[in-house]
Amino acid sequence: MFPETSSKSSASPAEPKGKRPPVLVDGVTLNGPTLDIREAESFLRDAMPIIMEEAVRKATDVKEKVCEWRSPEQLKEVLDLELRDGGEANPKILQRCRDAIRYSVKTGHPRFFNQLYAGLDPYSLVGRFITEALNPSLYTYEVAPVFILTEEAVLKKMIEIIGWTEGGDGLFSPGGSVSNMYAVNVARYQRCPNVKELGLSAMPRLVMFTSEECHYSVAKAAAFLGIGTKNVYVIRSDKRGKMIPAEFEKQVQRAKDEGALPFMVNATAGTTILGAFDPLEEIADICERHSLWMADSVAWNPHKMLLAGLQCCAFMVRGQTDILQRCHSANASYLFQQDKFYDISYDTGDKSIQCSRKPDAFKFWLMWKALGTKGLEERVDRALAMARYLAEEIKKREGFRLVMEPEYANVCFWYIPPSLRSTPEGPDASTPPQPQVAPVVKERMMKKGSMLVGYQPHGDKVNFFRQIIISPQVSREDMDFLLDEINTLGKDL
Amino acid sequence: MFPETSSKSSASPAEPKGKRPPVLVDGVTLNGPTLDIREAESFLRDAMPIIMEEAVRKATDVKEKVCEWRSPEQLKEVLDLELRDGGEANPKILQRCRDAIRYSVKTGHPRFFNQLYAGLDPYSLVGRFITEALNPSLYTYEVAPVFILTEEAVLKKMIEIIGWTEGGDGLFSPGGSVSNMYAVNVARYQRCPNVKELGLSAMPRLVMFTSEECHYSVAKAAAFLGIGTKNVYVIRSDKRGKMIPAEFEKQVQRAKDEGALPFMVNATAGTTILGAFDPLEEIADICERHSLWMADSVAWNPHKMLLAGLQCCAFMVRGQTDILQRCHSANASYLFQQDKFYDISYDTGDKSIQCSRKPDAFKFWLMWKALGTKGLEERVDRALAMARYLAEEIKKREGFRLVMEPEYANVCFWYIPPSLRSTPEGPDASTPPQPQVAPVVKERMMKKGSMLVGYQPHGDKVNFFRQIIISPQVSREDMDFLLDEINTLGKDL
Repeated sequence: MFPETSSKSSASPAEPKGKRPPVLVDGVTLNGPTLDIREAESFLRDAMPIIMEEAVRKATDVKEKVCEWRSPEQLKEVLDLELRDGGEANPKILQRCRDAIRYSVKTGHPRFFNQLYAGLDPYSLVGRFITEALNPSLYTYEVAPVFILTEEAVLKKMIEIIGWTEGGDGLFSPGGSVSNMYAVNVARYQRCPNVKELGLSAMPRLVMFTSEECHYSVAKAAAFLGIGTKNVYVIRSDKRGKMIPAEFEKQVQRAKDEGALPFMVNATAGTTILGAFDPLEEIADICERHSLWMADSVAWNPHKMLLAGLQCCAFMVRGQTDILQRCHSANASYLFQQDKFYDISYDTGDKSIQCSRKPDAFKFWLMWKALGTKGLEERVDRALAMARYLAEEIKKREGFRLVMEPEYANVCFWYIPPSLRSTPEGPDASTPPQPQVAPVVKERMMKKGSMLVGYQPHGDKVNFFRQIIISPQVSREDMDFLLDEINTLGKDL
Repeated sequence: MFPETSSKSSASPAEPKGKRPPVLVDGVTLNGPTLDIREAESFLRDAMPIIMEEAVRKATDVKEKVCEWRSPEQLKEVLDLELRDGGEANPKILQRCRDAIRYSVKTGHPRFFNQLYAGLDPYSLVGRFITEALNPSLYTYEVAPVFILTEEAVLKKMIEIIGWTEGGDGLFSPGGSVSNMYAVNVARYQRCPNVKELGLSAMPRLVMFTSEECHYSVAKAAAFLGIGTKNVYVIRSDKRGKMIPAEFEKQVQRAKDEGALPFMVNATAGTTILGAFDPLEEIADICERHSLWMADSVAWNPHKMLLAGLQCCAFMVRGQTDILQRCHSANASYLFQQDKFYDISYDTGDKSIQCSRKPDAFKFWLMWKALGTKGLEERVDRALAMARYLAEEIKKREGFRLVMEPEYANVCFWYIPPSLRSTPEGPDASTPPQPQVAPVVKERMMKKGSMLVGYQPHGDKVNFFRQIIISPQVSREDMDFLLDEINTLGKDL
């Protein structure tokens, strides 16, 4: 089973002193590395200018396209996706890099407005290049000392900004959805500590609450964590998209009357579509009356408005607490040895549901160092001012109608092509918007590659555009362009 | 609330035609971008040589240190972690980059043996630089066409290699632990489809099985998904670390006798510490008899032995099935619009528990293209041959003792310093190893920075080293060095 090591003695007399003859095991020569790191570096040096020119410079140039649309069928043909037995030479791989960049959507382009993230921050990007090159995993101090400490420093500052004077604990997770799952798990553990061991089948029916405007990850969390989507009691929101506190308290009472155990509410600061802020204080008061979890934890995604780059998501719990550790730990002996020579409170990995974990805080830390808190604040202020500018422009322009005044960076509006405007003198308020307008305009902008903006139906409202303003690369001129371009693309409808 | 847009009419006659006067909203000037992309590029160009020299060239140079040890207290002082109101100039930030790299562990170093991943593959790294620069999220084809298709292509090939001739479905997840959670959720949904809506409190007590040698993420999954850690029935393994099938069947029977509902078993191909392979065929036969989930899904981490870089973790389910979609979907209207103009089966995001998701398959696809399946296979073969070489060397050397013959890339062994060897002529088999040896040797190697290798106690066995061989940068000479160095560091103990 383990054959003898056979030495093929091919060492010539000219070989440097001390060099040993090659060792063959199972037909494999084991002397020396098989990956030539100088060749590897040379490939990297050839690839970097392509990345810099195509994925950074052109990708952020307002004069270039946001996307180069191809249908799935066309793109499969162009990319030659199949993986074969034989490898390909470096020039071919470099061409594949160019193609991959060419046909990718440029999310760092000033006119990428499609999601709740956008833009490119150079400090964050350098942070990401560093961590990708170093390839750390965040379980223990011994293998990721710098990244354990930068995560701690970032969390400390975020907790300070949240305003938890009593302190807090936290970790970075792979996405806001996962952060919401952490919140559900910690809240339920706080209420029923033996759920970790015994599971939900030994518990009363647990009920959680959220508004109808919440992110869809709350339903995913309920399903994944075994709570069940029907045990998420959905609370009505007002016209502006804010949870109605009185409705919340009614639902809590309903759960109690049913004999269920209400344990948490998810409140949203900036809903996905409308950008609405739930009335946090009033909700918190109700939580206090009924011992529900809410302001006890915060999920905050700096990869959105703060441009830290996907993914950068903090989950934080209030107070001097070891609940993350108690709730999630499994004490793996091969990672979290108790007989280490350093302070093992820095081995934070067992707070997490992950084992290997990316150092997502580092890029944010580096960017924060470069810009300062004031620099970050200015970016947010500017994005909000830009949203207000856009809203005013929409009100001024014929054929555009605000869904509502923006409260945050989400500006929601309809476009009504001339043929569908009922009265030549306007206003459009008397004309019902048409659901097919937004999808057609969207198709045309994607095929043209001029910009990307999202749309969706929402409640009783037919498809409307949701414009999100995030990046400091965006200017007033881009707002004007957005409206002009929608009109250009849709005026014949 | 929304103040009038005030135009500061400062346009001079010399201004280019068409240029509009600056617009101020809430004191913020909105004309033009505030992030100068040329300055950003210039910073990137300054940073790249540092990354290439420090985080790539030196970090993979066998003559450099694997780590530059500092205690948490020392390192905090060196790094100046605090985040302040004001920002810092670029030269300072570049120095921070150098420091962060300097004090980080070099996981791409040929003598980093500490975890189940190691090494640096240049193709994967270029893939990662591309995706970090483009910053895509993998929910919809419209924003990530290239990355949706490369994920599909990679999964197709992996499913082919697994041997599911009937096909399969899958997705990349943020870590093998999360993949294991997917497995538990899908298995439970398959068995009790209404668990998604009703939750576990409406179900019988669900029981899952795993061996005592399994990864600790199985316990984490049971806790997180509401199953409860006590409902994970742990099956004894044999001396080599393999699950004992007869014990498994006994536990299934026990669960049934208790009136619980057994629904899945986690079988491991390469256990964390010993590298043991559970007897998959025999376990599968038992699963078939009792309708349990097992070979129906596979979690496979190419970031480990295949060097795809953290994180790269596929979760796959067998057959022509839409179970991932049914089990995890929440149908968010703002992402998964049904009235799009392209084939929305490419909008794969709702299969996932995440919302934003990193394109982890792309780097693997690019590397696979460059090396071919044969190139990947050769790497694995060589790592296994290297493990066999090391095991033979351990058997030859006084003071070293194998815990067991390796079956995979994990070589587990004790080091016994001369003073603790009972008989001058050896062998060491008569001497009980001492638990304090490995931690002291580890401390010394970390402070010296010469290499990194893990250790742990395991069952009734005191601390032993677990050497993992993965990277093609590793040579036979590094294996010899490992043993020499342990002896050098520990011979006075």
